[in-house]
Amino acid sequence: MEQMKILLNDEEMPRQWYNIMADMPTPMRPPLHPGTGKPVTAEDLAPIFPMNLIEQEVSTERWIDIPDEVLQKYLIWRPTPLCRARNFEKLLDAPVKIYYKMEGNSPAGSHKPNTAIPQAYYNKAFGIKRISTETGAGQWGSALSMACQMFGLECRVFMVRVSYEQKPYRRMMMHTWGAECIPSPSNLTAAGRGVLAEHPDSPGSLGIAISEAIEDAVSRDESRYSLGSVLNHVVLHQTIAGLEAHKQLEKIGVYPDVVMGCAGGGSNFAGISMPFVRDKIHGKEVRIVGAEPTSCPTMTRGPFAYDFGDLAQKTPLLPMYTLGHDFVPAPIHAGGLRYHGMAPIISHLVHEQLIEARAYHQLETFEAGVRRQRKGHSL
Amino acid sequence: MEQMKILLNDEEMPRQWYNIMADMPTPMRPPLHPGTGKPVTAEDLAPIFPMNLIEQEVSTERWIDIPDEVLQKYLIWRPTPLCRARNFEKLLDAPVKIYYKMEGNSPAGSHKPNTAIPQAYYNKAFGIKRISTETGAGQWGSALSMACQMFGLECRVFMVRVSYEQKPYRRMMMHTWGAECIPSPSNLTAAGRGVLAEHPDSPGSLGIAISEAIEDAVSRDESRYSLGSVLNHVVLHQTIAGLEAHKQLEKIGVYPDVVMGCAGGGSNFAGISMPFVRDKIHGKEVRIVGAEPTSCPTMTRGPFAYDFGDLAQKTPLLPMYTLGHDFVPAPIHAGGLRYHGMAPIISHLVHEQLIEARAYHQLETFEAGVRRQRKGHSL
Repeated sequence: MEQMKILLNDEEMPRQWYNIMADMPTPMRPPLHPGTGKPVTAEDLAPIFPMNLIEQEVSTERWIDIPDEVLQKYLIWRPTPLCRARNFEKLLDAPVKIYYKMEGNSPAGSHKPNTAIPQAYYNKAFGIKRISTETGAGQWGSALSMACQMFGLECRVFMVRVSYEQKPYRRMMMHTWGAECIPSPSNLTAAGRGVLAEHPDSPGSLGIAISEAIEDAVSRDESRYSLGSVLNHVVLHQTIAGLEAHKQLEKIGVYPDVVMGCAGGGSNFAGISMPFVRDKIHGKEVRIVGAEPTSCPTMTRGPFAYDFGDLAQKTPLLPMYTLGHDFVPAPIHAGGLRYHGMAPIISHLVHEQLIEARAYHQLETFEAGVRRQRKGHSL
Repeated sequence: MEQMKILLNDEEMPRQWYNIMADMPTPMRPPLHPGTGKPVTAEDLAPIFPMNLIEQEVSTERWIDIPDEVLQKYLIWRPTPLCRARNFEKLLDAPVKIYYKMEGNSPAGSHKPNTAIPQAYYNKAFGIKRISTETGAGQWGSALSMACQMFGLECRVFMVRVSYEQKPYRRMMMHTWGAECIPSPSNLTAAGRGVLAEHPDSPGSLGIAISEAIEDAVSRDESRYSLGSVLNHVVLHQTIAGLEAHKQLEKIGVYPDVVMGCAGGGSNFAGISMPFVRDKIHGKEVRIVGAEPTSCPTMTRGPFAYDFGDLAQKTPLLPMYTLGHDFVPAPIHAGGLRYHGMAPIISHLVHEQLIEARAYHQLETFEAGVRRQRKGHSL
């Protein structure tokens, strides 16, 4: 019988995150202060993020220790299995082996707790009492709600309105973990009120929700903002998935020809791919491919430029592939892929041609999924 | 760091199911033919089930080989992890170790594929082309839809109406796997039409839905009925979970003081507990506890008596704890626990005082769940 799953025991879970910044072949452009146009300093970011996370954001250390408190939480569901999609291979009838990293078994149901837990931990360690954030489809909001509950922090989530209405169960999860969940745009912030004045029926966007969450965080004491994707420290935390996958493939003596992931802000894709990008930088032959929606085609259609991370221009200017900070994508099902920009790390690697990008329409992906369930016998 | 998960590799998955019938300390009463009142014969059951499953239903072999085709499908997600609920232990602040068997990671999201897959396999092997069944909350219906898709069988699911309305995503899963999903009571069967004539707004019950599914199956050629719980062969297939758990605890040198499971028709509870019941029969000290809803308290309030498995009295008379085949329980959230009877194997073991039963109100279980998420830090 063929092996269908490659498992790691608790003791085999990586104890460090991998920081691609140590291996970048060319220097990345720095984020710029929106007022002065100069590179942002740690002090500029201090009202938004706790200093320990700002240090991670700018770190160039290759390996960063995962704190024991975070490891203990990861062990609730990690390491995750690397599974072989044997029946899908048969469906394709092509001489390929397909493995997928199963990140959906976390308590919140996605890869997002990989960074939600350390972010809550570092905020708590820095003395923060309350976190504000935004969420698209609700994966990030529910993960951060859980993480805040784990470390005793208050949590307020601005959820893109179209997803708030489409996905009531995600709201229920956030409430169960004791967080507030507010449809965005809302009347609670100047940014939200501004949008509603012009578009009372706005379906919302991640760019708007980020503006609301930042405004909400910086207007209070002992309160900070948290972002579930895009930033360097988020990419760092997500590498736990790729490091495990790397180890799992090594165990069975396989090295991949292609590593793929879906990309909204880039955290899932970066998580699985960074350890393989590292190999590629050091000469290994491997294709790294990011898949994004045609309705929000940042990498495949956007220019590589400095842009804001949010609608209200509260974030630093980030060097990234972007469709413009005021872009409001169609209300597709995968609400988490509706971000106007792409993580600067991913953007830089696309620009350096170390990563390829492809865009797909949601209907063709749904059709492929159903076809796989129907003919491929459920993976 | 404490071990949080005990894993088994693909090769460590059990290759046989365990049949408690071989170890029963006292003989079980036989199912009776509803017309003659005599024990049912294999021929009586032949229009309802394929003969290979009827043979399993009456088998007294202790170990029954799992076919290779079924093993290969099990390996998509099995063996499942045995996890330690460390944070829940801390919340309880009691000197206990709590382990839970994680059956929610199957492609259909529950333990139900453990029997759906072999049932579809044996029907296919016997030349059957189409299966009808019922479902409460939708776990069984979605599992059987998937299994039928795997082996190329048509599938029609009668879903208890209240759940059909409460749980639209379960319907979508069944449709995705190519099955029909029909709210019950329906106009498609005489049994359904009979109920609707008297109660046009009937929320439905598993007893009604079973009548509809049996009628639907026996009125067609090359069509059979499938039941997701209650019967001996279902209990048999579900022992894969308990056999794994037994092996996993052995690996860490732990033997449980108490084995618990929630019980609707009994398949989940029987699956985890039968290998431990076997130990108990052979002298081991262990408590086996089934938890059921106060709104459908078969084991704790029902008499142990012969009763029909369905409203329309189409099934044999089964010896079981029962609230009466016309009992319609309140529309609680856990639709799968709303069955009027209890598996004859479980019932017999309760009657023989080898198994204890407890009833809980859904609100206290929800409160405990939320408390655990809030204070117990998500398991």
